[in-house]
Amino acid sequence: MRDILAPRIHGIDTSEIRKVFDLAAKIKNPLNLSIGQPDFPVPQPVKEAMIKAIEDNKSGYTPTAGLPQLREAIVEYLHAKTSVMHAADDVIVSTGVASILFLLFQTVVAKNDAVLLIDPYFLIYPALVKYHEAKQYTIKEDFDAGEIAALRARLEKEKVKLKLIIFASPSNPTGKILSREQLLLLSNLAEEHDAILASDEIYAAFDYEKKHVSMAAINKDRTLTLNGFSKSHAMTGLRVGYLAAPARYSGIVQKMVTLQQYTMVCSPHAMQWGAITALKTGIDNELAIMKKRRDLVVSKLTPVTRLPYPDGAFYVYPEIPIDSADFVTQAIERRLLLVPGYIFSANRKSIRISYATREDILEEGTQIFCDMVKELGQ
Amino acid sequence: MRDILAPRIHGIDTSEIRKVFDLAAKIKNPLNLSIGQPDFPVPQPVKEAMIKAIEDNKSGYTPTAGLPQLREAIVEYLHAKTSVMHAADDVIVSTGVASILFLLFQTVVAKNDAVLLIDPYFLIYPALVKYHEAKQYTIKEDFDAGEIAALRARLEKEKVKLKLIIFASPSNPTGKILSREQLLLLSNLAEEHDAILASDEIYAAFDYEKKHVSMAAINKDRTLTLNGFSKSHAMTGLRVGYLAAPARYSGIVQKMVTLQQYTMVCSPHAMQWGAITALKTGIDNELAIMKKRRDLVVSKLTPVTRLPYPDGAFYVYPEIPIDSADFVTQAIERRLLLVPGYIFSANRKSIRISYATREDILEEGTQIFCDMVKELGQ
Repeated sequence: MRDILAPRIHGIDTSEIRKVFDLAAKIKNPLNLSIGQPDFPVPQPVKEAMIKAIEDNKSGYTPTAGLPQLREAIVEYLHAKTSVMHAADDVIVSTGVASILFLLFQTVVAKNDAVLLIDPYFLIYPALVKYHEAKQYTIKEDFDAGEIAALRARLEKEKVKLKLIIFASPSNPTGKILSREQLLLLSNLAEEHDAILASDEIYAAFDYEKKHVSMAAINKDRTLTLNGFSKSHAMTGLRVGYLAAPARYSGIVQKMVTLQQYTMVCSPHAMQWGAITALKTGIDNELAIMKKRRDLVVSKLTPVTRLPYPDGAFYVYPEIPIDSADFVTQAIERRLLLVPGYIFSANRKSIRISYATREDILEEGTQIFCDMVKELGQ
Repeated sequence: MRDILAPRIHGIDTSEIRKVFDLAAKIKNPLNLSIGQPDFPVPQPVKEAMIKAIEDNKSGYTPTAGLPQLREAIVEYLHAKTSVMHAADDVIVSTGVASILFLLFQTVVAKNDAVLLIDPYFLIYPALVKYHEAKQYTIKEDFDAGEIAALRARLEKEKVKLKLIIFASPSNPTGKILSREQLLLLSNLAEEHDAILASDEIYAAFDYEKKHVSMAAINKDRTLTLNGFSKSHAMTGLRVGYLAAPARYSGIVQKMVTLQQYTMVCSPHAMQWGAITALKTGIDNELAIMKKRRDLVVSKLTPVTRLPYPDGAFYVYPEIPIDSADFVTQAIERRLLLVPGYIFSANRKSIRISYATREDILEEGTQIFCDMVKELGQ
């Protein structure tokens, strides 16, 4: 019998992580610290803008690249934030940053191209590297000049030119924000390799000590800035994300738009109007709550284990004494849902805790976590 | 200098058709008969359901495959329509039928696989065939047993097994609905070749003489049914489409869901609630208006040219005396916007007229069209 599936599709798999979620789905009344989205609602002005858009029949196709008004508003927003001025034509709006990532990989990543990730990485990056039959290189998140030098030497020896350097800061899963010095090191590496810098800033709004620096502010000519409204304005299910490119990469945006015409077509129309309002809508109250939770979790965890300092996002990524797959399975037995570190890293002995949930759940969940670490670490 | 683009992306191009639209964008007060979406608003109950969903904070991720309530409602809808009962797990909801098509091609179409299209075809099909480096075969829309026999002989001679047979009925661009006999011929061919039947029914709601037969009603074990809410409920920009598979193809749906997790993630949450209401919301008044327009256009055109009888959708596809690229350019000079036939067919001497617009525009636009045909045909 013929294989009904195309060979490429065997390159993508989620069966291992699905096992965990299937297991978790069976627990009653779980302490869910596995959540990848804010627990606050979409801010009222944004909701009102989307409702008005529906009432006003904003339901037809938008231009493939997004509403001109939204692309202009994104240009202004990025200019205010980074002092970098993009052309509106160099902005593409799609159905979330995941869609942007897929369009980007389809457009620029050929078989055997070298892609640099920072470990721990957002789980979609290595999946896309594998799906596109590219070669993955990684450096550790706390890299310094010495580690970049070692990587440089390795790439030289292997005669490999990096095509794409992609990273999220603040990071999912660690919450770490890359320092200006680290961004400079990556920028220099990109120059040497004529590589594209893809800066995923989807968590940049969750920046508790105002540490975040956009890569575009360091290297405006090589940086693709990826962002959206899923995390900052709790619009995960409403599907609006974007990419802004420098003039040098206009050709990439054009091809992404062409491919979008045959795939996602456009980001949902009424939601794009919500996004325009979101760019003008702060989330100070929500951030204050998240920061308080972060401080609570950090103070609970630091006496029992090590973790990268979570500058931003809404995750912490503590070390655990055993393999993360086993740890998560045992945690489920105690009603606690976590995300295993092995999906974010070659190092399997960490787990991701999300603090995008109520404080009483956080208190109880982190207590169980700490008890487990102590018991298993003995 | 290195090519910044991956080779695969050169396989997709819209520059030719874009030239036409760029030209068209410069006309003031055009007679626009190029429209690919209904001119009626989203029905009020559907709008209300979406607004309520936003108010009720239906803004987080849905399950990747879609809301269970929507998948169940789709199962019931298809059962009522075709008597075929799908498992809800064999339904995937995505950001429109275009997204469904891309996920499907990525999942099943390998390099050099043979794909059968019906000419004229929806323009995304040949683009996806080319993008996936597959081999395209076509048969004419008015095919009968003789033409299928000729195709069969050709495939046998070339030692080619069809992998996928994909078609839209009612057709975009012709409005033609395939007869039960034609569906049977395709079904038999699929059986002989162990091929998948992909039945794109996005225009099935626009069926003026109740002629439409679903392929699933003819061959329930081999048919993937594709549909959505873009055309029937004017939700083109709101991005909800679906695919329903027989148990035999569960594995295809599973892989499409996995790939969706890394790409579109989910169809917009609030819009999925709208879709549930849309399945219960008829569009009789809108259909009556469309039918009247169709009859008007057919009566205007038939004295001057030939066209496939437009059973459904909201297009007609008349023959013209010259190449469609030139015809469209000349029409633009007379303020008339049309879509050239060459993007839908190897035969370049037809054009697509959409009647999803006001009657006075239709009257004036078709008059200009008829004048042009007469002048150019002399």
